[in-house]
Amino acid sequence: MYKLTKIESGVCAADGFFADGVSAGLKPDGAKDMAFIYSDTLCDIASVFTTNKMTAAPIRHFRNKGDFQTNFVLINSKNANAMTGKAGIEDIDEILSALPANITNPVMSSTGVIGVRLPKDKIISGTKLFNLTTRNSDAAAQAIMTTDSFAKKIAYKVELEDGSNFHIGAIAKGAGMINPAMATMLCFITTDADITKEEMQTLLNANTQLTFNAASVDGDTSTNDTVMLLSNKKSGIYNKEAFNKALYEIMTFLAREMVRDGEGATKLVTYKVTGAVSDKEAEVVAKALSNSLLVKTALYGEDPNWGRIASTVGASGAKADEALLSISFDDVCVYDKGNLYFDEAMEVKAAQVMKKDSFTISCDLGLGDGSFRAYGCDLGYKYVEINADYRT
Amino acid sequence: MYKLTKIESGVCAADGFFADGVSAGLKPDGAKDMAFIYSDTLCDIASVFTTNKMTAAPIRHFRNKGDFQTNFVLINSKNANAMTGKAGIEDIDEILSALPANITNPVMSSTGVIGVRLPKDKIISGTKLFNLTTRNSDAAAQAIMTTDSFAKKIAYKVELEDGSNFHIGAIAKGAGMINPAMATMLCFITTDADITKEEMQTLLNANTQLTFNAASVDGDTSTNDTVMLLSNKKSGIYNKEAFNKALYEIMTFLAREMVRDGEGATKLVTYKVTGAVSDKEAEVVAKALSNSLLVKTALYGEDPNWGRIASTVGASGAKADEALLSISFDDVCVYDKGNLYFDEAMEVKAAQVMKKDSFTISCDLGLGDGSFRAYGCDLGYKYVEINADYRT
Repeated sequence: MYKLTKIESGVCAADGFFADGVSAGLKPDGAKDMAFIYSDTLCDIASVFTTNKMTAAPIRHFRNKGDFQTNFVLINSKNANAMTGKAGIEDIDEILSALPANITNPVMSSTGVIGVRLPKDKIISGTKLFNLTTRNSDAAAQAIMTTDSFAKKIAYKVELEDGSNFHIGAIAKGAGMINPAMATMLCFITTDADITKEEMQTLLNANTQLTFNAASVDGDTSTNDTVMLLSNKKSGIYNKEAFNKALYEIMTFLAREMVRDGEGATKLVTYKVTGAVSDKEAEVVAKALSNSLLVKTALYGEDPNWGRIASTVGASGAKADEALLSISFDDVCVYDKGNLYFDEAMEVKAAQVMKKDSFTISCDLGLGDGSFRAYGCDLGYKYVEINADYRT
Repeated sequence: MYKLTKIESGVCAADGFFADGVSAGLKPDGAKDMAFIYSDTLCDIASVFTTNKMTAAPIRHFRNKGDFQTNFVLINSKNANAMTGKAGIEDIDEILSALPANITNPVMSSTGVIGVRLPKDKIISGTKLFNLTTRNSDAAAQAIMTTDSFAKKIAYKVELEDGSNFHIGAIAKGAGMINPAMATMLCFITTDADITKEEMQTLLNANTQLTFNAASVDGDTSTNDTVMLLSNKKSGIYNKEAFNKALYEIMTFLAREMVRDGEGATKLVTYKVTGAVSDKEAEVVAKALSNSLLVKTALYGEDPNWGRIASTVGASGAKADEALLSISFDDVCVYDKGNLYFDEAMEVKAAQVMKKDSFTISCDLGLGDGSFRAYGCDLGYKYVEINADYRT
């Protein structure tokens, strides 16, 4: 038995963690563009990075360090430090070596435009503005935003049966370039739970599959995707089941928030696929649906065009049969095992569901026990506007 | 030695072929919506169909017939006869059995909305309007259009060294739902060349890979994709090399026309990938580029955002290395093996290329000899407008 209580203060919820965001002039409008997360004792780190082969410099820099503990993460937005070769790595070394002496093995993370060298001097000047005794998770969450329209944060206090407790909290950014091949975003999770490094990595991997890797905005995968879990063990308390549940809730919430904030998105849709021959095939179908342009534009048009859903299921590569397939919009079943009972009354009911900000499209393939849940959004004019003109 | 001469009259270019388009009231505005292709002698057929598992009724009907010759293809637009189960097959039987007695083993092909029964009576009435002595390939090409903004047709006279000749011509439709997994469209090719059925199928398969399967508008694959090649052998003439060249030219032209007419497209882009470890990996990269939403919106914005191209190459799954990669827009090289010489002057030059209606993006991976060429378009507001509101 354990109890999760939602609390404020994101990455500063856990004991001993500090964070803030400042403006270093990377964004043109004086908005916050640099953040730090600091722990007053050293942390173990678990991480999941992009599968993109054009891995950004900060990720290569992290990997080059091997096994280590840290007490500091430096994050900048506006510039991804990707496709910058050896110079990109050297820039990170120079920036991190300018940090104060009480910082150990600092880690850097970047997001923004690809193929431009970091404005090193601005970033080094920015780090001088950091006050390591500040607990402002919201400012940090704002500073890591790029095309995000709102900051993303969450935290839980986890109480065990004997009254002991630990904390876990997170901030994240991610709006476009969210893909099921790897959740394309930055996410930093901090905890004072007394968890081993090995278990941190195991639980982070497993929950990434079910959450960030099940979220899609536009099917692209970036060069900088990073999920990092830091633990300073300060609470001295740990319970695997409770920790895993809190981690799952945090990552599911952030994955859904990222999709909800998908570039130009107006709807958050859960694709619930059941009856596939395996969980893997259910995943293939759910991700095909969440990535289909024809489905996404139908969502935007609030058109219960179930034919496009059926066609996408068929095109996904997974085993499927029109005589066994059923499709529902929330609880309105529009196609049931070959029965075309999609009349005008049904269409009105289904269209009502589609007007909602958030709903579920269920596909039962009628073949087996495989199931998966993916999260997607619609695609409208705003997506085109944002992405046709991102750099200028 | 042989000579190809472009001629008029599309599917009626070959001896003994007739075609027309009529309005049967399927489209609301009195536009042509039914077409036929008729040969006054029986034809061998080669065909390539969709890989979508929700195969439309006309394709299942065709496959159920086994091996046969025909002299008649009936095509309707506006209704795909897909997801219509056994009833969809029975509807085709009823429609085809109402055709005149001089028609042998007729074949049906449909395109349009999924999940609605065919308006059988309207279609049967429509067939009464057909005049089998008409040679109006343009009317047939118009009748099979759905969201196409122009009709697609082409024909060649093929002359051999000894002065003998044969003909090959085609019509096609396809604007949205064009995917490299299988060119999503209808295409009918007729010839009087004296080619065997086996060779027809072999050459059709090979050229489909290089043409329709290399074209992408939005990454979706429909339930109705069909490429059909009909030969009545009337010329008595055949030469493999010449026929194959003419078939390749016809299919390449139509594939590019379909992409150029991609829903809302303003640009036709050729993705030329070289230096991959294999042709297969080059294909993976070229298709990833032609399908990437971030690349497509950058094209629409005429933004030479080569970082998105590099990121998409890296995300494709193919082997790639930023230190070996080069990227060019036509002959403007913007990234060369880790050299970031993308300054303002270069950006202006690259932006000039992107203003063109048609250009080539080349990616050399610097790893091996694998190459592939894919065709894609941009994605703008118009695509969203068309697809958010297709059914209404």
